[in-house]
Amino acid sequence: MNQPEPFDVVDLIRTKRDQGELSTDEIQWLASRYASGVVADEQMSAMAMAIFLNGMSRREIKDLTLAMIETGERMDFSSLSAPTADKHSTGGVGDKITLPLMPLVASFGVAVPQLSGRGLGHTGGTLDKLESIPGWRADLSNEELLRIMDEVGGVVCAAGSGLAPADKKLYALRDVTGTVECIPLIASSIMSKKIAEGTDALVLDVKFGSGSFMGDISRARELAEVMVQLGEDAGVKTSALLTNMHVPLGRAIGNANEVRESVEVLAGGGPADVVELTVEIAREMLRLAGQPDADVESHLRSGKAMDVWRRWVAAQDGDPDGALPEPKESLEVKADRDGVVVEQLALPFGIAAWRLGAGRTRKEDPVVHAAGIDLAKKPGDEVKAGEVLFTLHADDPARFDRALEALEGAYRIGDAGEKINNGGPLIADRIGGRGSAHTASN
Amino acid sequence: MNQPEPFDVVDLIRTKRDQGELSTDEIQWLASRYASGVVADEQMSAMAMAIFLNGMSRREIKDLTLAMIETGERMDFSSLSAPTADKHSTGGVGDKITLPLMPLVASFGVAVPQLSGRGLGHTGGTLDKLESIPGWRADLSNEELLRIMDEVGGVVCAAGSGLAPADKKLYALRDVTGTVECIPLIASSIMSKKIAEGTDALVLDVKFGSGSFMGDISRARELAEVMVQLGEDAGVKTSALLTNMHVPLGRAIGNANEVRESVEVLAGGGPADVVELTVEIAREMLRLAGQPDADVESHLRSGKAMDVWRRWVAAQDGDPDGALPEPKESLEVKADRDGVVVEQLALPFGIAAWRLGAGRTRKEDPVVHAAGIDLAKKPGDEVKAGEVLFTLHADDPARFDRALEALEGAYRIGDAGEKINNGGPLIADRIGGRGSAHTASN
Repeated sequence: MNQPEPFDVVDLIRTKRDQGELSTDEIQWLASRYASGVVADEQMSAMAMAIFLNGMSRREIKDLTLAMIETGERMDFSSLSAPTADKHSTGGVGDKITLPLMPLVASFGVAVPQLSGRGLGHTGGTLDKLESIPGWRADLSNEELLRIMDEVGGVVCAAGSGLAPADKKLYALRDVTGTVECIPLIASSIMSKKIAEGTDALVLDVKFGSGSFMGDISRARELAEVMVQLGEDAGVKTSALLTNMHVPLGRAIGNANEVRESVEVLAGGGPADVVELTVEIAREMLRLAGQPDADVESHLRSGKAMDVWRRWVAAQDGDPDGALPEPKESLEVKADRDGVVVEQLALPFGIAAWRLGAGRTRKEDPVVHAAGIDLAKKPGDEVKAGEVLFTLHADDPARFDRALEALEGAYRIGDAGEKINNGGPLIADRIGGRGSAHTASN
Repeated sequence: MNQPEPFDVVDLIRTKRDQGELSTDEIQWLASRYASGVVADEQMSAMAMAIFLNGMSRREIKDLTLAMIETGERMDFSSLSAPTADKHSTGGVGDKITLPLMPLVASFGVAVPQLSGRGLGHTGGTLDKLESIPGWRADLSNEELLRIMDEVGGVVCAAGSGLAPADKKLYALRDVTGTVECIPLIASSIMSKKIAEGTDALVLDVKFGSGSFMGDISRARELAEVMVQLGEDAGVKTSALLTNMHVPLGRAIGNANEVRESVEVLAGGGPADVVELTVEIAREMLRLAGQPDADVESHLRSGKAMDVWRRWVAAQDGDPDGALPEPKESLEVKADRDGVVVEQLALPFGIAAWRLGAGRTRKEDPVVHAAGIDLAKKPGDEVKAGEVLFTLHADDPARFDRALEALEGAYRIGDAGEKINNGGPLIADRIGGRGSAHTASN
């Protein structure tokens, strides 16, 4: 009886276990006591599994998001003269969109505070990719962050430990307890960090399809709707694009090669799908930031976005002209027949790149920046027998076998005229954004 | 990739989370790696919640039970000349049955190895009760245990840490993670210890009703059926009685006063319900041990059971004639009207005794041996205004208020002829026991 706590965590776990709703006070108490260690990891993981299996109401998800924010600090960009807009992607294979996107949006005078994470598993991390650039530095002090935001108009850096620290603990816990793919926990985790970050506007790139987190589009839509509502409720102008992750995005999967591809986009070239997604997300961010008529493509053609890229890389101590690391070993995989590439599945290509060394299995593992895959052919491309389909890169040729194993059945060459299995249009829908009509592009 | 483990615990958690079945190999791996610490507490608590919500097949429960046994040692009573029989109760208010039962059964030449636990919450612990006896000692070495079993025919002692150690860890974890009331986990926990203990026969006293663990009789029946099957599968002759825990058992709730009541039963007296349950369980144990026609009551009347009690208490260093601790403070609660006691609920009386100091909130708390409640009147008894209904005992009078708070609405005096709300007969059914017909007594 020597506990003056207003709640008992076991009672709260039982409530959720028995399909009850947790009150606002109970959720606030839970988050704060988890942050302070009164609620133990084993108790939070039982709670996470109960949430996974019994769900949460919209009101509970909102309370959890706000309670996670309250466990830490909030950033404040009100000293900046520019409005701020950010984007978040739920993660996919070959998803380097942040790299061309940030300088592109910043080139229109909208500041982009990209606080990013590192990759774990088959989806890459933005910071890992950028660290391919000689000298480039992900860890910035708050002062550096604000100065670069002000001078360059954008920043990509590691999220400090001060934002929603209870969410950081819970995120690591979910990873080892099989409670990752859970909409209430995903939505509150993403949005607590983004709301605490203090951006004015936010575009969510919610992936669906084989290479994504959520799998089918209906779950992706539900996640998008929950997150848009959370953002709007917290006063952040928020919208979401539902985008297709059935096939890898672009031609480069890895780290250094994804930087190379991003620079191509900033130079006005690059693969059509990467350009399309970059432009559409930039348009949406600028629309939310009050520039609905911005001629986005013109800043790719004119080099204005590239100028920001170069200034920004330098501001974070990187050399924009520095040589990117080259792979020690490469293996070309060639077509065994004439035909058309009709299938190329994102998930196995992501896993193969991961096994080549581009990703990590444990948080403390290093990544091999030159490792990865370059796709010479994409779905719909014609191919002749003997032509290169894709090239694997690694530091150690021993890695090729396990990568090829992952790729068994991952791609197929069919006959001309056969249906291309690409999962449909790249951008399937747009959710939210202050009453604007839903549009389907492509 | 530096883990040569055949399974990944996160995959196993996901399987159960997604309503799959775990294979025998997976369950064995899980239990052994939980015992060795490879599987962390937070992972096991997520698994426990997934099992709680999605259940386990009979095959999985059996595998879990056997896997828990394999994490530790097994006892071996084959050196004894006598057959062995044990009983387990799922716990109730005023349940002191082990105390008269063990000597009674032992007096027929059937050895009883009672490895018991301490109480937590509103149900008391057998060891706590017995430690009221001056000098009596719960912790015995394996050699002492075997010697006393051989010389006296029975023993009641603390279960060593060697039996099913993984279950011991899991039991403590379930207590703090809201995963207690779960049939697969309860059944495997109880039966892994009892099977490892090596008894030839086992009678399970599975309680139902307000003061019990399981609540309604259908859940108690399911638990009983699962446990009986586990016992039979492991070669232990097993049966179960479904017994009523709607009202407290006997007149004494506490520790020292329960010892006193047990000695009354051994002397041929005592409350009718305690005598009935003691005799019925003894009869069942003796039946399973090959003595279906034993005249059980005669050994209470003749003092043969009392002789074993005295020899056994002395063998565990207790003084059978020693004075039991007396309460420092007592409070009589009297009837405010003439009538008949029509209600007396087990759960609030158990909670009140606990608050008086008879039970503990944390494992490390001491219990107050003289604390508890003596019931002067039981359901069905007539009472006059001003007569004592029950008496509270504590070391500190400050405890009376919170005990009385728990007892609000817990008992009622009605008019003569009103229905007595006692939850029905004491023994509702018998399950299992090698093809014998189910019988309903009382």
